[in-house]
Amino acid sequence: MTGQSRLSWTDVRDEIQARILDRTYAPGDKLPRDNDLALGLGCARTTVHRAMQELSRIGLVERKRKGGTHVRTDPVTRATFDIPITRREVEQRGSKYAYQLISSAVEPTPGSVMARFGTPHPAEVLHVKALHLSDNRPYIFEDRWIDTTTTPDILEVDLACNSANEWLVRNKPYSKLDVRFFAINAQGENAEHLSVAAGEALLVIERTTWIGTAPITTVRSVTAPGYQLSAQN
Amino acid sequence: MTGQSRLSWTDVRDEIQARILDRTYAPGDKLPRDNDLALGLGCARTTVHRAMQELSRIGLVERKRKGGTHVRTDPVTRATFDIPITRREVEQRGSKYAYQLISSAVEPTPGSVMARFGTPHPAEVLHVKALHLSDNRPYIFEDRWIDTTTTPDILEVDLACNSANEWLVRNKPYSKLDVRFFAINAQGENAEHLSVAAGEALLVIERTTWIGTAPITTVRSVTAPGYQLSAQN
Repeated sequence: MTGQSRLSWTDVRDEIQARILDRTYAPGDKLPRDNDLALGLGCARTTVHRAMQELSRIGLVERKRKGGTHVRTDPVTRATFDIPITRREVEQRGSKYAYQLISSAVEPTPGSVMARFGTPHPAEVLHVKALHLSDNRPYIFEDRWIDTTTTPDILEVDLACNSANEWLVRNKPYSKLDVRFFAINAQGENAEHLSVAAGEALLVIERTTWIGTAPITTVRSVTAPGYQLSAQN
Repeated sequence: MTGQSRLSWTDVRDEIQARILDRTYAPGDKLPRDNDLALGLGCARTTVHRAMQELSRIGLVERKRKGGTHVRTDPVTRATFDIPITRREVEQRGSKYAYQLISSAVEPTPGSVMARFGTPHPAEVLHVKALHLSDNRPYIFEDRWIDTTTTPDILEVDLACNSANEWLVRNKPYSKLDVRFFAINAQGENAEHLSVAAGEALLVIERTTWIGTAPITTVRSVTAPGYQLSAQN
């Protein structure tokens, strides 16, 4: 032990960030290896590792498994969203959750669903429409298609009592996910099920999941007016 | 070397996922340590580590620095969004980018901005409005407030030529970020600057950043109709 105070990982993060800003490490540059940085700074390699994780999380550097760490040429704002099961989302806000099955039927796969699934895709899908409620008011209208080839068990689930959302999240882990956010004007069944006037601006969360290349499900969650999705990093 | 084929990290991921599904590891359970799992599976600790990173990324397990790995009680859909500098976003789609400054003025901090910044917040802010264009069509209307206490340099930047978006992302790393997505009906200056009819549904991306507890900037990016934000995990 020397009398020297040890650097914390936030000190190391700030130091590396400062070097990136003053162009000691310019955009696109490869950074020294964690070990070498640790030696230079007089701290543990794990401290550098933690600092680098943070700089990667906020989008300033890019870490590759074999290629080391690079300063991002174009920094990005990186935000990680955790989208809970809808029931939990409602309950976490202290509201009462309810669920209504609107319809459930095996149908030929629509072209729009084929486009979302890509190849391969099934000839038929289970089409499930449901409404999630928060304190008795419409919260999310869920329009979902499920590939019963990859998920035959869903045909045994009583969807009048169990939401496909919750059953799938709990029972059907995926290896690939695509999420999109966009805004639509309420019309037709979206307006009807959410009990809003035609034209209201609604946030849509569209999710598609696969196991390997085989589709599991694709869902459009049409949210009630005022819905916000947020992340804090 | 034995004749045994080595497990890949995807094999290990699938094996641990299977154990979570069959409740060998139930929701809330603490998983064995990476080392012990590696011994049991006959693979390297780093292979288990990689598999765990993946299971954490998709929201099935939770890893804590000292507390080990737990099966999440409520699984979540976890999606990481990289929001590039707007110029890069447009150029990456192969479109021509242009930028127009609408206004820039130091103003007393509005209540809505105080609410987003929290405490402490500055008495005055630099209020910048700008339009980003893609192939000469409005793409994002940016309504931004900047704390000139934390970022005095911004007052030296010629915002007629340089977008505050790009300057801040390149020069002002933050330690804390809040991002929100929601939908609004176009009206007033949003409709005017984006050249859309009042009532059109628009996706809004609201971002606020801090360094420590001191605010840097808060911005509402009001996107043109049809804008989608997507992530693939």
